[in-house]
Amino acid sequence: MADTKVYRASTTAPVNIAVVKYWGKRDAKLNLPTNSSISVTLSQDDLRTLTTASTSASFSGDDSLLLNGEASDISGARTQACLRELRARRQAVEAANPDLPKLSTYPLKLVSENNFPTAAGLASSAAGFAALVRAVADLYELPETPSDLSLIARQGSGSACRSLFGGYVAWRQGERLDGVDSRADLVAEAAHWPEMRALILVVSAAKKGVSSSSGMQQTVATSGMFKERITKVVPENMRLMEQAIAAKDFPKFAEVTMRDSNSFHATCADTYPPIFYLNDVSKAAIRAVEYINAKAGKTIAAYTFDAGPNAVIYYEEKDAATILGTFYQTLSHIQGWKEGSADAKSDVSLEEGVASVLKDGITRVIQTGVGEGPTKTDEFLIAEDGSPVKR
Amino acid sequence: MADTKVYRASTTAPVNIAVVKYWGKRDAKLNLPTNSSISVTLSQDDLRTLTTASTSASFSGDDSLLLNGEASDISGARTQACLRELRARRQAVEAANPDLPKLSTYPLKLVSENNFPTAAGLASSAAGFAALVRAVADLYELPETPSDLSLIARQGSGSACRSLFGGYVAWRQGERLDGVDSRADLVAEAAHWPEMRALILVVSAAKKGVSSSSGMQQTVATSGMFKERITKVVPENMRLMEQAIAAKDFPKFAEVTMRDSNSFHATCADTYPPIFYLNDVSKAAIRAVEYINAKAGKTIAAYTFDAGPNAVIYYEEKDAATILGTFYQTLSHIQGWKEGSADAKSDVSLEEGVASVLKDGITRVIQTGVGEGPTKTDEFLIAEDGSPVKR
Repeated sequence: MADTKVYRASTTAPVNIAVVKYWGKRDAKLNLPTNSSISVTLSQDDLRTLTTASTSASFSGDDSLLLNGEASDISGARTQACLRELRARRQAVEAANPDLPKLSTYPLKLVSENNFPTAAGLASSAAGFAALVRAVADLYELPETPSDLSLIARQGSGSACRSLFGGYVAWRQGERLDGVDSRADLVAEAAHWPEMRALILVVSAAKKGVSSSSGMQQTVATSGMFKERITKVVPENMRLMEQAIAAKDFPKFAEVTMRDSNSFHATCADTYPPIFYLNDVSKAAIRAVEYINAKAGKTIAAYTFDAGPNAVIYYEEKDAATILGTFYQTLSHIQGWKEGSADAKSDVSLEEGVASVLKDGITRVIQTGVGEGPTKTDEFLIAEDGSPVKR
Repeated sequence: MADTKVYRASTTAPVNIAVVKYWGKRDAKLNLPTNSSISVTLSQDDLRTLTTASTSASFSGDDSLLLNGEASDISGARTQACLRELRARRQAVEAANPDLPKLSTYPLKLVSENNFPTAAGLASSAAGFAALVRAVADLYELPETPSDLSLIARQGSGSACRSLFGGYVAWRQGERLDGVDSRADLVAEAAHWPEMRALILVVSAAKKGVSSSSGMQQTVATSGMFKERITKVVPENMRLMEQAIAAKDFPKFAEVTMRDSNSFHATCADTYPPIFYLNDVSKAAIRAVEYINAKAGKTIAAYTFDAGPNAVIYYEEKDAATILGTFYQTLSHIQGWKEGSADAKSDVSLEEGVASVLKDGITRVIQTGVGEGPTKTDEFLIAEDGSPVKR
């Protein structure tokens, strides 16, 4: 009698926001970067992808992915690379132990959901590929470490490799052509510096700009100053950032974060034709952070921007009242504030010009902080009979 | 009987807009730059400063300057440096010929007017210092060449040194500590490539940003990529730009112009804290130029931005209908169009998103083109009795 059992594994995976940015590929197919990077993993209470992977001899047809309730095309080279690598590792396990079911030969059914609106314009691909890789690895009961799995997630989306860990995570660029040394590792657990918070200001963007994948290729090809970034600026920022995290030195963490974001967006502006991810609302957020720090007389907030206009503002819990109170004064009308934000008291009032640009241009806030890595869960998006769970 | 004669000289001087940008001082007092630069001198029919310099033994008190009808403070180090240098050269002339009147010992009265609104936010200091230096040099009947005088104007405002010439002008950075080799020279007369036109899109700016003088100091001090610009990017752009001008190769001229503007603003964005001169309107102008070039299937327009949001768009006369017609469609409601612009026919219609940003954000256009250098004139702003002419 054929084995009709449905094997399942479910995991959540986090979003990460880099403080030393990944921008530039030395190998586009393998997603090998031109420089190392460091990120903070954000709490999955606020931002996470939940993915259930399942497989069974009773499944027919091709592998499939249901993403946020809709069938998703997984024929692309990046997803295929991840699934191929995961299957190859399962085959190795099966070859070593012939008693194991031949899961590698069955079709995969994947169901995935984000707990945050896609409209927020947050790069969800990092959490998505990390969850996919982690869930299938769990399904296949692979012995690989998170760092090993980061090699696979990296091929789905570069920054996804950093979402295999919680806390403070480095992606080492590596030197090898086959990319096996281009992997994520842990700089520090979330518990080492649990006070790190992030306030995300979601900017309404009329239109998505240049995709990061094509944008970074254009930068590598045309920016006259890019080489300086990858050979001098980033190595120094990596060194300083690891020191700052080890010492929990927020002012140093903040300065490197802001400088590196500036440097990354400068190389975008130096691309030909130029790429602009920051708009006037983003710049108002920068001015607001500078103003808060000036009023505080020390650096208590740091802005950073990925390949889009949204501002991510890092701060420590002890300064929550000042940071949240200042922005709440201007942005109390928009959604996303957690309970208690209205009570946050700040002496800082943003300048009228900055405040009005933010008021008009920010559509949502997300309050979060440093968090844990992928977590196995009993919450399944696929029932025991292999059908998607209705939600 | 005392000599009561009022000696007068009057000159006009042009604005110039760099196509390889000056940004960064190696000596702030002497205005010695970190890199060479090249500009196009714009026609004085559209943008010029008219300055009359006068002096007389009958004048009493300190040197004075009446600028656009208002008394101007000339006690600043930069203006004083120019006047001191000019007097020193006159003294040399007087020492060599004792029969000459001792103009160097008399007070100077200067009256100056721009033919363009200060509100336009165009850097008028280049034309202003060039006119001041040229007018006083004429008053003093100095034998110095324009290149010699550029050394003096440079000390007033760096880019002013390029306004001593018409056409296509280079400012050679020089190497000497005393700056005597940091001077302007002619790359090509206006007559060599008279077809060069410029359309200036004046952007309404709520507030003046960081001044260029302090901005460039901050960039030198904090940008991690600035050194690459001055040591590699600019020298290459200088070489290519001189080739392009010699060959009247517009596509090459245009690409270097746009790349160098991008590179300059990238170093501003890489400054800490970052400096942003371009706003969302400026970026819409960039997209418009890219769109026009894409539609034309070749490069017929080039954007460049100084330390502010205004776009300067260079093009050749043969493409005037396309360039003017395209922008006129969107901006017909604002002032500054020359006669005939309404008749300029273009097949290019800007995308709605770009057009609406331009329509809301551009307050004025200025249509001009390459032009001549400072020109002696019989139009005096000071009467023969030494009093300002009522206008």
